[in-house]
Amino acid sequence: MAHSFHISPHQRHLKWSQSLAPALTVPSGAEITFSLLDGGHNQIRPDNAPTALADFDFTLTDPAFGPVYVESAEPGDVLRVDFLDLEPGTYGWTALLPGFGLLADDADIVAATPALKIWDLTESGTLPNASGRKRLAVLKPGVAVPVRPFLGVCGVAPAQPGVELSTIPPYAASGGNMDCRDLSTVGATLYLPVNVAGALFSCGDGHAAQGDGEVCGTAIETPMTARVRLTVEKRAEREARGWRDGRKLDCPHYVTPKKGREEIEDEVEDDKGEYAALGIHEDIREASRMAVRGVMDWLEAEKGLTRVEAYMLCSVAGKLRMSEVVDMPNYAVSCALPLSVFLE
Amino acid sequence: MAHSFHISPHQRHLKWSQSLAPALTVPSGAEITFSLLDGGHNQIRPDNAPTALADFDFTLTDPAFGPVYVESAEPGDVLRVDFLDLEPGTYGWTALLPGFGLLADDADIVAATPALKIWDLTESGTLPNASGRKRLAVLKPGVAVPVRPFLGVCGVAPAQPGVELSTIPPYAASGGNMDCRDLSTVGATLYLPVNVAGALFSCGDGHAAQGDGEVCGTAIETPMTARVRLTVEKRAEREARGWRDGRKLDCPHYVTPKKGREEIEDEVEDDKGEYAALGIHEDIREASRMAVRGVMDWLEAEKGLTRVEAYMLCSVAGKLRMSEVVDMPNYAVSCALPLSVFLE
Repeated sequence: MAHSFHISPHQRHLKWSQSLAPALTVPSGAEITFSLLDGGHNQIRPDNAPTALADFDFTLTDPAFGPVYVESAEPGDVLRVDFLDLEPGTYGWTALLPGFGLLADDADIVAATPALKIWDLTESGTLPNASGRKRLAVLKPGVAVPVRPFLGVCGVAPAQPGVELSTIPPYAASGGNMDCRDLSTVGATLYLPVNVAGALFSCGDGHAAQGDGEVCGTAIETPMTARVRLTVEKRAEREARGWRDGRKLDCPHYVTPKKGREEIEDEVEDDKGEYAALGIHEDIREASRMAVRGVMDWLEAEKGLTRVEAYMLCSVAGKLRMSEVVDMPNYAVSCALPLSVFLE
Repeated sequence: MAHSFHISPHQRHLKWSQSLAPALTVPSGAEITFSLLDGGHNQIRPDNAPTALADFDFTLTDPAFGPVYVESAEPGDVLRVDFLDLEPGTYGWTALLPGFGLLADDADIVAATPALKIWDLTESGTLPNASGRKRLAVLKPGVAVPVRPFLGVCGVAPAQPGVELSTIPPYAASGGNMDCRDLSTVGATLYLPVNVAGALFSCGDGHAAQGDGEVCGTAIETPMTARVRLTVEKRAEREARGWRDGRKLDCPHYVTPKKGREEIEDEVEDDKGEYAALGIHEDIREASRMAVRGVMDWLEAEKGLTRVEAYMLCSVAGKLRMSEVVDMPNYAVSCALPLSVFLE
């Protein structure tokens, strides 16, 4: 690549819109480096931790950085995003914020909110795993979570002209704050529908680690440097591959990376199974809440964690699966915590 | 174990109730072998496949086998179930049944229902994986799913006297048809609340393989021989471990097995990453439907599967994760299909 493309922390927006002026124009296939503020707009840092939550301005949350105009992208095409490199900052944070999170209305969580954990992500603050290859972020002595960076926010301009969409929720037709731990890790490929000429891609919200669901409302939030490649897949190309009538993507699609031998070998060292609870309820959300509470009950009873530590641990390392969605009237959702988070 | 305990296919019931007479009484710690009809009461078999769906009697579905009265189990205790051995039958089946399944009201699925796939699970009908250790059940040439047996149904008598509960849905307070692929595989441990003296444990619904969610409504259904150990954890024991005031389990809990080196080495051979779609919607169920349809769209467009094959493949091998449940108003649910199902 002859050019070096860069998006700076100042090139940020808090709404998704067709009418944003491009911060950068690149050809299809370009690699771009994004210097990203975190999902809280770097308002929470180690140096201001004691007062950061009291001063926190919610209107600045989930900034997106860009947008990048990709030449040749037209409505009906697909934008392919390859995640080449993700470097978290030297610290991260996890917070309970009022009214935010899956259990935000549980009495014990209300009573404990706000709460803040600052994670030291420097080499001296993290631990090596057994093989020495993986970094572990320490929740408290004996409890640590593998660093597994991804971007919470990846999106394009929406299909509706004249509309400004909040950057906080995700959208089927344009992505955004998807907070999906699998779709934007290094080696993953994301496919987003193109709704306007140039696509207008932006990203942000670096996470050093997150479980499925991000249940307490925050991950290990961190400033991040991200390098991605943006490539246009033309509608005609996709039709030739078998997408009938240029069938549009109804939602984001993605391919997760093939694991390398080193990563699998790490798993030999680290896999101790999972402790899980299966929430069962006619309302899927209530089933998921029951499952998370079940694992938190166990963490309190048998592992001596506080309720807040347990909630945060589920948010940054738990897996939330829809185990059964057809045996009506009840759904079954599992929350599973890898036992390797316990170092003993 | 001095005794040999056995439950036969005739010892079955179609309701959960406190008033069922025990089929067997065992001491805590006993190992019991269950000879299980499948979840369709063996009404669908290779020998009657052409007419089986037309003749299918729904009132016989999801039989449970037992119940087993476990001595010393009292309300407030927990029943620990260890899964020691699970042997599927020589065949399995996957069906689309009218009105049943996550996409049962999609026009293309309605038009294709009923549909039946019979799987050959004999050694000559399955394929070895690259290492020769794992058995693969063949959907069609070039597409196969690892055999990974578990029990869909594991439950105890309900807490309410005089009540008869259907065996089709699962229940938070007593388990039942949980259809959770992780909680009853060989090596897993399940914890169920005890609601009545003796617990009255039953199981059934053998699955040779299933994805998260069992989205088409059926797994690879198969008769199964299951060996489990039933152990009572007394309330006082659990209190001593840290469960305050004998805190009752609000739902089933479980521990998944630590992977062995062989299993991890299999993954080195087999892991090719996943193709996934992220459904995004304010209704969690609609988000999950969007995700499943997205993977089915891809299977049709780029892998040449029929809509029915694609739906069944998601049901027996797909992973359904609640990727984001806090960025309101929209939830994000992913459906991910391991690319190792494609053999080439």
